[in-house]
Amino acid sequence: MSAERFEKKETIDLRKKYIGPSCKIFFSHDPIKIVGAKGQYMYDEKGQHYLDCINNVAHGKHTCTSVYTQSTLKESSQNSNSIFLFSVGHCHPDVVKAGRLQATLPDKLAVCYFVNSGSEANDLALRLARQYTGHKDIITLENAYHGHVSSLIDISPYKFHQLSDTEQNQFVHVASSPDVYRGKHRADHPDPASAYADEVKDIINKAHKKGGKIAAFIAESLQSCGGQVIPPVGYFQQVAQHVREAGGVFIADEVQVGFGRVGSHFWAFQLQGEDFVPDIVTMGKPIGNGHPMSCVVTTKEVAEAFMSSGMEYFNTFGGNPVSCAIGLAVLDVIEKEDLQGNALRVGQYLTSLLEKQKEKHLLIGDIRGRGLFVGVELVRDRLKLTPATAEAQEVIYRLKEQHILLSADGPHRNVLKFKPPMCFTTEDAELVVEKIDVILTELEEALDLKLNNTLAVENESNKRKVSLTLLIIKKYFFNESVHDFAVTGFHFDFISLQFLREAAD
Amino acid sequence: MSAERFEKKETIDLRKKYIGPSCKIFFSHDPIKIVGAKGQYMYDEKGQHYLDCINNVAHGKHTCTSVYTQSTLKESSQNSNSIFLFSVGHCHPDVVKAGRLQATLPDKLAVCYFVNSGSEANDLALRLARQYTGHKDIITLENAYHGHVSSLIDISPYKFHQLSDTEQNQFVHVASSPDVYRGKHRADHPDPASAYADEVKDIINKAHKKGGKIAAFIAESLQSCGGQVIPPVGYFQQVAQHVREAGGVFIADEVQVGFGRVGSHFWAFQLQGEDFVPDIVTMGKPIGNGHPMSCVVTTKEVAEAFMSSGMEYFNTFGGNPVSCAIGLAVLDVIEKEDLQGNALRVGQYLTSLLEKQKEKHLLIGDIRGRGLFVGVELVRDRLKLTPATAEAQEVIYRLKEQHILLSADGPHRNVLKFKPPMCFTTEDAELVVEKIDVILTELEEALDLKLNNTLAVENESNKRKVSLTLLIIKKYFFNESVHDFAVTGFHFDFISLQFLREAAD
Repeated sequence: MSAERFEKKETIDLRKKYIGPSCKIFFSHDPIKIVGAKGQYMYDEKGQHYLDCINNVAHGKHTCTSVYTQSTLKESSQNSNSIFLFSVGHCHPDVVKAGRLQATLPDKLAVCYFVNSGSEANDLALRLARQYTGHKDIITLENAYHGHVSSLIDISPYKFHQLSDTEQNQFVHVASSPDVYRGKHRADHPDPASAYADEVKDIINKAHKKGGKIAAFIAESLQSCGGQVIPPVGYFQQVAQHVREAGGVFIADEVQVGFGRVGSHFWAFQLQGEDFVPDIVTMGKPIGNGHPMSCVVTTKEVAEAFMSSGMEYFNTFGGNPVSCAIGLAVLDVIEKEDLQGNALRVGQYLTSLLEKQKEKHLLIGDIRGRGLFVGVELVRDRLKLTPATAEAQEVIYRLKEQHILLSADGPHRNVLKFKPPMCFTTEDAELVVEKIDVILTELEEALDLKLNNTLAVENESNKRKVSLTLLIIKKYFFNESVHDFAVTGFHFDFISLQFLREAAD
Repeated sequence: MSAERFEKKETIDLRKKYIGPSCKIFFSHDPIKIVGAKGQYMYDEKGQHYLDCINNVAHGKHTCTSVYTQSTLKESSQNSNSIFLFSVGHCHPDVVKAGRLQATLPDKLAVCYFVNSGSEANDLALRLARQYTGHKDIITLENAYHGHVSSLIDISPYKFHQLSDTEQNQFVHVASSPDVYRGKHRADHPDPASAYADEVKDIINKAHKKGGKIAAFIAESLQSCGGQVIPPVGYFQQVAQHVREAGGVFIADEVQVGFGRVGSHFWAFQLQGEDFVPDIVTMGKPIGNGHPMSCVVTTKEVAEAFMSSGMEYFNTFGGNPVSCAIGLAVLDVIEKEDLQGNALRVGQYLTSLLEKQKEKHLLIGDIRGRGLFVGVELVRDRLKLTPATAEAQEVIYRLKEQHILLSADGPHRNVLKFKPPMCFTTEDAELVVEKIDVILTELEEALDLKLNNTLAVENESNKRKVSLTLLIIKKYFFNESVHDFAVTGFHFDFISLQFLREAAD
């Protein structure tokens, strides 16, 4: 943590520059700069103590001048002390953090709101968009996941499609996922970016006809839970143009894919090119290396419109000095250890190893990724793209037995999802690919699925299904894991499940 | 932190007992119990390492078996290490924390969901209620504040009344605050509890007539931002009966008032009597002493209904071992240092000192509180209860000059709000009351407001307003603080503001 000390005026100036103006300070004509606290006392930068009758992670002293994170009990808790005291210092980590984050972004994205989770960030992004535009409608992508609070389940087909009594919110419109492997417009399309963006334009026109007004288009810069989809370059630019023409804004959700993971850039939206700048960017997961924090960054115009609503934005823990100091430490490490560079190098190597596996294994339908964000889509048939859901689960369980943790995601849960720690090495990449090679070889033998015999397999689909079924039964059925698949949110392939049941009878 | 070590089976059993079943574990037929992590590796309780290709505060290994808080960068960050490693151990703090929290509650409240903020907790409470009941309508109280995410602004009149274009959500019904000082039914009413509860019954009937169905009634156990309102005993029981008869549930929001603050009990809803048990309790602010965490506790029935929706509840940071270890440390301190007892003793003393001030100062309309949650409502007229908003701000600013921090809240921002750290002493209480005595004396002199001359003051209202205005102008106007009042969310009294402007012209 920086030992840098700012004068109160400098802290206030930095705050005005970087922190959303809806986040108010107590005693704003002459705020108190608190740099420490003990028991019921707080201390300003000159050592003056204040008796705190507000407290209780209290209402008022938000962000910069706040040490509410330590006002209660602090003195007496040894465990807490070790946590709470280290970050109380003189550099006011929230403004420093905001400044450093801003430096990674285009200039236009200048105002930060620190909150506690990706969900809080995306919910605030929707509020900012709706306040700025005065509109209500949101366009989201097929299979999108943006968080677990009510407003975000409404815009997350990944979640709301799981509900038995799906009732789509009237203000939410779902556009096709710009997936050039399995989607509506594929790699053989001359211009998939325009084709997918035109669909967004159609949605806007339809909404207008019904009296709707577009507040925002929201998308992960690379769809993560949705199946590790890499949108074609130019798609975001065109979507942003359509949405802005309709008076809406573009929200880029970087919660899962930001902070250098894509290797070539710090933010995944930058993969679209320098001519693309979102109006709002949300950040989460890696920002605090697991510590609960997140951030929304937007333009001055959006931030000012939000303030003009007259409603203060108050977030109890948001921007607390401990969280921000942790966030700063994470930025330090990313930079000092060149983790973005590592993601680029190891990610490229991992992808090249996987591409070789694709030449060998018919089950691998597609390899796609950027940096250490790589998806391997398994299919039972390379022409029909039949999702190899059970096979993906088999790979995951077999890897676990060999002490490697991997997950599968996407609407069919058939995309092996690589999102390893940023310190992942080429040796790690070799190890996991080698194990996958063995597992896929065995699976394909059991399925009698060999490269160059696709047609034979097509004609022997019953045999194939049965042998797969037996394999799965042998492995799991008497182990309750079919139940697992059914209840853990995996959209277990119903045909396979049916076969399992029949085989078990 | 406890050095206790559980066998994996015990950890799983505790998890089944205390943690919401919608929170899934990876590899649920044989979960991995992770007790540490380093770089790209995680370690189980037997020291076996796993190569982690999921990570990134990752999708899957939720709560009990998770160390996602440390999978990234951890090895290399000194600052982070000191935070992230201390809590990774063998006691699985989430289940231990859940068990210890449960021990403070009635048996019926048995299932916990750990989340990151009071807002996340209240949003989840609404989702639980709606899923369990299959209903949508929510009854909330006048002036209530329950959080900053979209779904909670909808049920927080304290917030949505601030918006210029207020548009009340069709599923939200607002009941009168059970305020026996300023509310519809006052201390002179023979049975204010029934009178206020009957209003809730009327609201339910009206909603039914329009085809609405009640999912929940939600209230803070003591209204905090709403003006430190203490509901009459029996009110919650009667409301709960009406709401349950309509198929709804009772949500007690303890975010601001729980954890022993009320002195006589650990939870503020317990002030209503042992015959009252809410269906859902939400916790926040003090639970982690400033660390971002919170919790929702509910009954087995509600938790099981939530699971039956088929939708997994996934919260990235919720229930992470660091947060839970901090939460455990807080519970330790509350217990070891008898902070609840201190709140009772010092709170009673503070209240008695304030009661004496009430005998002396006409500006004090009401003293109300429990433990270290005390409100002092300032009024310009004890009969008309005219809110002394500007005077309350004057007290706060004058106290600040003397290095004491106090806030004012309530719909008129005229209630001095005492919510000091739980280690507050009798000497602290004496000091702040002594300072308030001096300030009120001077204010009353300036206002020519003396006890026993109420009538005279009534007849001289112009003189009084002008002298108050001049006092305020002298103090603040050339200091920008009128602007402060207007923009910082204070509902500054428009009449006073008008006077100030006229005087300034």
